[in-house]
Amino acid sequence: MIEARVTVTLKTGVLDPQGKAIEGALAALGFADVGAVRQGKVFDIVLEDGDPQAARARLEAMCEKLLANTVIEDYAITLPPAR
Amino acid sequence: MIEARVTVTLKTGVLDPQGKAIEGALAALGFADVGAVRQGKVFDIVLEDGDPQAARARLEAMCEKLLANTVIEDYAITLPPAR
Repeated sequence: MIEARVTVTLKTGVLDPQGKAIEGALAALGFADVGAVRQGKVFDIVLEDGDPQAARARLEAMCEKLLANTVIEDYAITLPPAR
Repeated sequence: MIEARVTVTLKTGVLDPQGKAIEGALAALGFADVGAVRQGKVFDIVLEDGDPQAARARLEAMCEKLLANTVIEDYAITLPPAR
């Protein structure tokens, strides 16, 4: 069993209105030194099959097909350190 | 300037219908070995002030006040390694 984490973030240059709104809300709460906020998504995925090499390939396929919109989003896959 | 990452995830035991839907969609796409999926949020925050100690405290305050619903969500703060 492998517990992987996939992080999906907007590519640089893509507008992020949600991040902008959070920026404004933080400033309104008194956090004056917040420069920029970008919001992304994180998926914690449990894979039953335990082979890390195959896992990375399968997770990439999941990102390409469903989890990320690769036109505007980047994804990063984090696997637990091999034992 | 500090680029911090805040990851907000649902606490264990809290139902995650969005994660369940992704689980179903991945299974329908042929990813048969997906055991469980939980979705969370990630915030990439740029702080203008460069003191890492103060940064962590301020980021915790941001999570408590705005970024996370601490009744049902956990948050984790990742700061870049000190130089």
